[in-house]
Amino acid sequence: MSPRLPRIHSYLKQKGLDGLIISAESNISYLCEYACRDAYLLICQKENIYFTDSRYIEEVKKNLSGCRIIKANGSVFKLIAQACTELRLKRIAFEERSLPFAEYAKISENLKKGAKLIPTHNLIEALRQVKGIEELKKIKKAIWITKEAFGFIKSFIAAGRREIEVAAELERFIRYKGASSSAFDIIVASGPNSRFPHHLTSLRKIKNNETLLIDLGVDFKGYKSDLTRIFFLGKINSLNQDIYDTVKEAQARAIKKIKPAVKINEIDIAARQYIAHKGYGKFFVHNTGHGIGLQIHEDPHISSNEGSELKPGMVFTVEPGIYLPGRFGVRIEDMVLVSENGCEVLSGAIDK
Amino acid sequence: MSPRLPRIHSYLKQKGLDGLIISAESNISYLCEYACRDAYLLICQKENIYFTDSRYIEEVKKNLSGCRIIKANGSVFKLIAQACTELRLKRIAFEERSLPFAEYAKISENLKKGAKLIPTHNLIEALRQVKGIEELKKIKKAIWITKEAFGFIKSFIAAGRREIEVAAELERFIRYKGASSSAFDIIVASGPNSRFPHHLTSLRKIKNNETLLIDLGVDFKGYKSDLTRIFFLGKINSLNQDIYDTVKEAQARAIKKIKPAVKINEIDIAARQYIAHKGYGKFFVHNTGHGIGLQIHEDPHISSNEGSELKPGMVFTVEPGIYLPGRFGVRIEDMVLVSENGCEVLSGAIDK
Repeated sequence: MSPRLPRIHSYLKQKGLDGLIISAESNISYLCEYACRDAYLLICQKENIYFTDSRYIEEVKKNLSGCRIIKANGSVFKLIAQACTELRLKRIAFEERSLPFAEYAKISENLKKGAKLIPTHNLIEALRQVKGIEELKKIKKAIWITKEAFGFIKSFIAAGRREIEVAAELERFIRYKGASSSAFDIIVASGPNSRFPHHLTSLRKIKNNETLLIDLGVDFKGYKSDLTRIFFLGKINSLNQDIYDTVKEAQARAIKKIKPAVKINEIDIAARQYIAHKGYGKFFVHNTGHGIGLQIHEDPHISSNEGSELKPGMVFTVEPGIYLPGRFGVRIEDMVLVSENGCEVLSGAIDK
Repeated sequence: MSPRLPRIHSYLKQKGLDGLIISAESNISYLCEYACRDAYLLICQKENIYFTDSRYIEEVKKNLSGCRIIKANGSVFKLIAQACTELRLKRIAFEERSLPFAEYAKISENLKKGAKLIPTHNLIEALRQVKGIEELKKIKKAIWITKEAFGFIKSFIAAGRREIEVAAELERFIRYKGASSSAFDIIVASGPNSRFPHHLTSLRKIKNNETLLIDLGVDFKGYKSDLTRIFFLGKINSLNQDIYDTVKEAQARAIKKIKPAVKINEIDIAARQYIAHKGYGKFFVHNTGHGIGLQIHEDPHISSNEGSELKPGMVFTVEPGIYLPGRFGVRIEDMVLVSENGCEVLSGAIDK
């Protein structure tokens, strides 16, 4: 188990909680430092119990330490409740954002009288916002693979190639470079398809004199990257160029804001105000960025109503975008690390 | 909207429910016949409302009909509750297996007095068990791509290749054949790694005189395939051969049971009994199969305690397996369709 655990224990004590049921896979993976799947974790002062089914038992026994392992086929919620009874836990916290209502109800109805489930959220997520050295190494490797992939794909992109073929080549390439998978379905959006921020990569053939948007992330040992680049094919019209320049400048202004103790919404506002000033305000339809680590989207969210402050060690994307209905869209996405005095653009200088 | 909707309406009426909030992505996709993401759907006699955020609005407007579309950024649960109030819904069903506790609580606290959330499950899932003609076409295409991929990879597999390289080539190949993605992280498990049913494809190099297990599925227009094949490299020892033959025979016996009105657990029992009879009973650590369609795992689950009956149109996997701790594992997985009189092995005759 992770050295992060004592911090959870002291939090529970402080809040008068006897135990915590963790259901979010990424939180379990964080605490166990192991890629957990189909599992639940019960934490209390006395011991930690890892519940999984028979498909994973062999693997878990080999990789996990510091936990009692319980094989739970079909009756996991009853077994969690039984463990709570056995350990005499009364006030048991659970993760309200990941536990489905039905699972909450099943655990609850199997608890002994006097024991109670208490909703909590963002307990582990808050810890995860600030990355440790080993986590940063993995994130940096994921970014390196992604940048290599952008370099590689440049020579493949040409009029006549289909979007899905570009994705196919990227999927192959990243694995040869050490990624275990892409971090999400790679977005390859040619010409007008780029007007959808989350376009589903299609059979459309790339054409000359249009842009190609690629949003690519990879998974390296559980940690994710997420970068977006625009490729120009042939001659680009002046509106498209103007929008590209606007997004690039908006991103630069957002990044300039980043240093410890700055309010997170200032980053979003910097990008949003510049885009509005250029007349494209209503076409910037999403947040400026999101935290990234074990999950592709995690805290902090770089939105205009996030009033909390930046801390050294936070890693997130900065990705303003402009999407013209019926026409095309532009997004540029990099990843930054909040440093002691400012920020480091982890995805570094790359031809955008 | 789908012609499937009137069946939901009549169910709601029969149960005395005024509306239904759908939160499971696959259920929304099923009813909307469109690949929905980050959405909620409210269904009632009067109208259907689709809630999504600004990233998807352009795309949804283009692809969706028969729904009012509400843009919900950050306040979706409040807006769902408001819509319930506006439509004067009192008894509002929700999907208890997919709605997290926190979302349930947020909708609930925003409802007007007198209105109430009622947990339901498997409402849409039950309909989805029996596949329609258009769905079967997509599933068959997904299977065809998967079989093509197995044929292709045969010539690539060789001692010295890494597991991840095999996955890389498959990921590329399936997209050129029309898949939008793999349906799950492809499992490539060489030699001893095959002892983990859900092995994470690694950097291990394939060796001669061992087996290679590949579990591959693809997504074709939202519908999934899922097949597992064992490849023999060089000379295989007699224990490995015996286990392979046992799994193959267990699968054949399970498939033989399949026809309408048979109890689902009889399929599982047929495979399990044969494996037990051969002395490997305790090494068959999972169910015999699972339904498949819009999701990789859906109803029906082919387990020993599933007492419901087979119906024509059901599609599921048949995949017995034996996993020897510390040594190796064998799984053979095909997909079947329950026909009017028996069953059709959709993944057909293929060299196993």
